[in-house]
Amino acid sequence: MHILIIGAAGMVGRKLTSALLAAGSVGDGPIDRITLADVVAPEAPDTTIPCNTLAADLASHGVAEKLIAGRPDLIFHLAAIVSGEAEADFDKGYAINLDGTRFLLEAIRNQGRDEPYCPRLVFTSSIAVFGEPLPPAIPDDMAHTPLTSYGTQKAICELLLADYSRRGFVDGIGIRLPTIVVRPGKPNKAASGFFSGIIREPLNGMEAVLPVDDTVRHWFASPRAAIGFLRHAATLDTATLGQRRTLTMPGLSATIAEEIAALERFGGTAATRLIRREPDETIARIVAGWPQNFDARRALELGFVAEASFDDIVRAHIEDELGGVTART
Amino acid sequence: MHILIIGAAGMVGRKLTSALLAAGSVGDGPIDRITLADVVAPEAPDTTIPCNTLAADLASHGVAEKLIAGRPDLIFHLAAIVSGEAEADFDKGYAINLDGTRFLLEAIRNQGRDEPYCPRLVFTSSIAVFGEPLPPAIPDDMAHTPLTSYGTQKAICELLLADYSRRGFVDGIGIRLPTIVVRPGKPNKAASGFFSGIIREPLNGMEAVLPVDDTVRHWFASPRAAIGFLRHAATLDTATLGQRRTLTMPGLSATIAEEIAALERFGGTAATRLIRREPDETIARIVAGWPQNFDARRALELGFVAEASFDDIVRAHIEDELGGVTART
Repeated sequence: MHILIIGAAGMVGRKLTSALLAAGSVGDGPIDRITLADVVAPEAPDTTIPCNTLAADLASHGVAEKLIAGRPDLIFHLAAIVSGEAEADFDKGYAINLDGTRFLLEAIRNQGRDEPYCPRLVFTSSIAVFGEPLPPAIPDDMAHTPLTSYGTQKAICELLLADYSRRGFVDGIGIRLPTIVVRPGKPNKAASGFFSGIIREPLNGMEAVLPVDDTVRHWFASPRAAIGFLRHAATLDTATLGQRRTLTMPGLSATIAEEIAALERFGGTAATRLIRREPDETIARIVAGWPQNFDARRALELGFVAEASFDDIVRAHIEDELGGVTART
Repeated sequence: MHILIIGAAGMVGRKLTSALLAAGSVGDGPIDRITLADVVAPEAPDTTIPCNTLAADLASHGVAEKLIAGRPDLIFHLAAIVSGEAEADFDKGYAINLDGTRFLLEAIRNQGRDEPYCPRLVFTSSIAVFGEPLPPAIPDDMAHTPLTSYGTQKAICELLLADYSRRGFVDGIGIRLPTIVVRPGKPNKAASGFFSGIIREPLNGMEAVLPVDDTVRHWFASPRAAIGFLRHAATLDTATLGQRRTLTMPGLSATIAEEIAALERFGGTAATRLIRREPDETIARIVAGWPQNFDARRALELGFVAEASFDDIVRAHIEDELGGVTART
């Protein structure tokens, strides 16, 4: 089996690559070859499995064709301009998030013109396809009313994925990821960054800023769960999806207070004291428009699994990023 | 006020043109100029209001810019490749229904770069954005799961319209039209054609084929109601729409049996005897996947009005197309 990962240099892409190479197979299929692509060439992983890494801007004409020329059996499409940047740069967001995905779908369709070709395509969508007004728990059949250009682009790609799949051009499945916490690495400027920061920094003995109230509720899963979603989506029988090719992934609905309580159980008050409350009205307003909870029934029935408590999320971070050790333990 | 109608040569476009020119104004604004565009140049209407007619293929580069160069204040975008053709010709459907609309939105956005410009854009979407599984009455917040490429393209354009409006590039409003009956003119090959045919042909003393069962239920409005929707959308305060820029129009949920009963009240058994039952499994299967009823609460609250009975629909046809006279009367 030949696997292509587009957007392989990002946090999720790197973790997915490691997990796939460690397993050596996807479902029953041994991995013969892996191609890792991103706007900057991803680092070559340490593996005996044949591996290409390449720099590829999906929004440029002809790039998708080159990526698909090797007829990969399984494609993970993780590449995207993130929410804040897609809002700041309208043209860039549409060029990469919409046109890039459409180029990919067209390249796959064209590859199948002379010789049958219908690879599995796993596409990462986002809960940003939903926007106010929203019910307390968003059901699977809720209309998409994105309030950002990023969410609009993801919602459009979901529609394209379904239509190209229905026509038999690709075997697509989309997954809407929860907000991923705890993201490893340095703090970033994403409006959602504090959700990870208030766990990651204190466990590392560093201060973290909390710009919103303790009562704020949001929808979470760990990076480990996200990799599990992607791998499950790669082998799922897509006949079970019907025409609804994109699924809201399961997650944990939790408040900041619950998040901090979990931190205290692992890092004590030494950790929670490092959270500095610094209310930021702009961030609070953005976050207030975000979904808080989902009834992700379809994905649960199809075997996708997320964390059941914030303790599970913090534990996954400590095990996967901190070698199982915190300052307190 | 300068009005541009794109797709002006179609049935709805011609009726809209006549209605606007007869009124001479839209809301409080007198019409100074009207531009009528379609893939083939629309017929010049008989009017004293300055009027341009032109052939314009919206899917060709530069055409949208030319249409928008005159900075129309109000734009009706009715142009589309219909469902059957968009399904038969994948590329053509996407080129016109998706790219054409995107070119139009970009042309409007570009026109506003140097000098503020934010025209009202009324876009005709379709109930084809909805597909099985569906509840008995489809609510306003139902997810879009189109089962055709046409429905996919319309759903994507709704998302673009909302995002371009949110960003202040255009003042957009989308309306999802019910199936329009009774369509005047000759029978066509659309799968939905019989809904009009079994009224139109018998009232004209001609035979009509009914390919589905009498119990089939569907969602209807007259051409007269459709023109009313478009004119109301042109003057509605879009601030009342929030971020949800497209509305399911009100309509009448009725069965074929109810349709035939209305025909009998106007044309007697002389008319209903002209309906020849000729079951067609292919058409029956297509129609079975179509929406049957909507709870179009938002549009009703915003003042859109449709017919309340099939008698109203047949009466509108007799008044508007047959000079108020049928064979029986």
